[in-house]
Amino acid sequence: MTDGARAGIPPERYTRRLSDLRALASERGLGAVLVGVGPDLVYLTGYRAMPLERLTMLVVPPSAAPLLVVPRLEQAAARAGLLADVRIVPWAEQEDPYRLALDAGTAHGPLAVSDRLWARHLLGLQAHRPDASFVRASGVLRELRMRKDAEEVELLRAAAHAADRVVAAIVTGRLVGRTEADVAREVRERLVDEGHEVAEFAIVASGPNSASPHHEASERVIRPGEPIVLDIGGLCGGYGSDITRTLWVTGGDPSRGPDAAFLGLFEAVREAQAEATSAVRPGLPAERVDAVARGIIGAAGYGEFFIHRVGHGIGLETHEEPYLVAGNDEPLVEGAAFSVEPGIYLEGRYGARIEDIVVCGPAGPIVLNEAPRDLYVVAG
Amino acid sequence: MTDGARAGIPPERYTRRLSDLRALASERGLGAVLVGVGPDLVYLTGYRAMPLERLTMLVVPPSAAPLLVVPRLEQAAARAGLLADVRIVPWAEQEDPYRLALDAGTAHGPLAVSDRLWARHLLGLQAHRPDASFVRASGVLRELRMRKDAEEVELLRAAAHAADRVVAAIVTGRLVGRTEADVAREVRERLVDEGHEVAEFAIVASGPNSASPHHEASERVIRPGEPIVLDIGGLCGGYGSDITRTLWVTGGDPSRGPDAAFLGLFEAVREAQAEATSAVRPGLPAERVDAVARGIIGAAGYGEFFIHRVGHGIGLETHEEPYLVAGNDEPLVEGAAFSVEPGIYLEGRYGARIEDIVVCGPAGPIVLNEAPRDLYVVAG
Repeated sequence: MTDGARAGIPPERYTRRLSDLRALASERGLGAVLVGVGPDLVYLTGYRAMPLERLTMLVVPPSAAPLLVVPRLEQAAARAGLLADVRIVPWAEQEDPYRLALDAGTAHGPLAVSDRLWARHLLGLQAHRPDASFVRASGVLRELRMRKDAEEVELLRAAAHAADRVVAAIVTGRLVGRTEADVAREVRERLVDEGHEVAEFAIVASGPNSASPHHEASERVIRPGEPIVLDIGGLCGGYGSDITRTLWVTGGDPSRGPDAAFLGLFEAVREAQAEATSAVRPGLPAERVDAVARGIIGAAGYGEFFIHRVGHGIGLETHEEPYLVAGNDEPLVEGAAFSVEPGIYLEGRYGARIEDIVVCGPAGPIVLNEAPRDLYVVAG
Repeated sequence: MTDGARAGIPPERYTRRLSDLRALASERGLGAVLVGVGPDLVYLTGYRAMPLERLTMLVVPPSAAPLLVVPRLEQAAARAGLLADVRIVPWAEQEDPYRLALDAGTAHGPLAVSDRLWARHLLGLQAHRPDASFVRASGVLRELRMRKDAEEVELLRAAAHAADRVVAAIVTGRLVGRTEADVAREVRERLVDEGHEVAEFAIVASGPNSASPHHEASERVIRPGEPIVLDIGGLCGGYGSDITRTLWVTGGDPSRGPDAAFLGLFEAVREAQAEATSAVRPGLPAERVDAVARGIIGAAGYGEFFIHRVGHGIGLETHEEPYLVAGNDEPLVEGAAFSVEPGIYLEGRYGARIEDIVVCGPAGPIVLNEAPRDLYVVAG
């Protein structure tokens, strides 16, 4: 419930976003866009509501004023939290909020619901409109949310720099002899100290664990002579951070440095990450960024060990549109923000990954993270 | 991602819960129970998965072994996090996970989806089964989750006592001259210090704000001669805490004590809370607890100012079944845990509320909170 995002976004922007959404909904012939609690609601109104079993729903009909259906109990919170000019329609404990939402000016046409709306609420809506077609609101909202405006880019940059500072602190601190979980705790504390309101993940994957892309930090003790994949992030000022760097800990013993095979593997990741980032420009199909990274890793002989997409969008969510994955031929738009994070994972042995947050600028990539991308060979 | 709940619940319990769910699903003629990331998944398997756009789904068919559909990337995390004996079915980046889930032994009959499943996932399932009926899994899961077992009651008790200690610290600390938001920050810090992994809410509602039941802590400065409604809680060891106490701050000036009208109002709340709690026993319709409180507050002349239900269930969620509200005539079951929290709110003036977590024991109420329920008249 930070006010970071609120501080960064001028209030008139919300009015603009709502009118853009109405125009899109009208163009697509939607009956309404129905937005539950979550990032879409924050994007459109600034209101960070508690997720509750009681329905809170922004109703955006194509040709009527938007309104917010809220439990009567939440009315004061909604009034304080709303930054957009939206009428509040409170509902009392025994009223049916789904009927209230559906009666609020919805037109004919498919009803678009926000992606994170709880199933209980979607089923509540569907029960009243058994013949209606329900679709994902991200079909229209993605087009707005993908184009970050200047203030959003600055919020993402601030989040990225906060994460950069945590990386700098971890790679210069003690590692050998500590458990992954202990280092992960330090990461989370530092993310919060650097301004994150939520430290969402702190992957500390050492030795053979570095071959598992989404490894949870475990009780494994970090030893000299092995790599660590450090992948950390969360929400800072309402916007996501997400950075990965790869380390090699020597324990201060030069004979415990990275072996030639690892250096070769790391170099393929480094080159793939740099080239995929350089390829970013408006109009490029999203899957091409993935293909560039995959081409380089494949040519180095590691194709089958790059087992995930190259990146995901980031903004009010740490994973959002666009997804940089084979099969997504949608062109990158100016203002799109996403991770570029190729990796190679040799199961049972080790792995490496490098990740930055990149914005698609008018003339090419704008890289938000500033932490060096080399292999961090540290005494640990 | 605490291990508190995991530490408290013996692993064989998960096997039992899954087989109970299968029996219920079969009895109700369900095609399957489809459980996404969230508290239902934790209840059934112990697995605290990250909420992601990539589908993670426990499939419980009535007459086949349960299995967990997980993104390939999350496979290691799932293996580490699962405490139940459930087969993992990983899906690769370009596979259709909804088809995988639906093909995993589902039978004819309505498909029950977990209440918190994201709409995007429900729509993904519905697209493959346009003619199927989808229903809320809470229809069956509530019957299991409402009956807390002994270990769950102890986890709820530990959470309640942690919240009690925070109340004790706040009522003996400085209040006058501080903003509500500043006190709320202290509440959140203390909840975490006392073992909460998430401080979900910290309502500090002073003076006229105390008349707003879900007031967000504001920049209002607390002054002598006014009440404060303090309603705090979150998740502690995986289980919810939720306590409300009402204070009156005098600033050390005896002439700034509570007026007679407030004392009368508070006494009605205190009596309503005590009597509603005493009424709790297995078999009592849930709405009767609400009615007892409402009767006392009504007789005192404040009926129209008690504007919310008397309570909500609590467990792995801070709001869950059963809801103690007019219209819910379902009998309380032994082991049900819920809040009992009547209040009176005079808009523009002040309000009061008292809340405890109560378990429906075999012979009557078991009250988990131990903080005194009197009006806390403090110098502040």
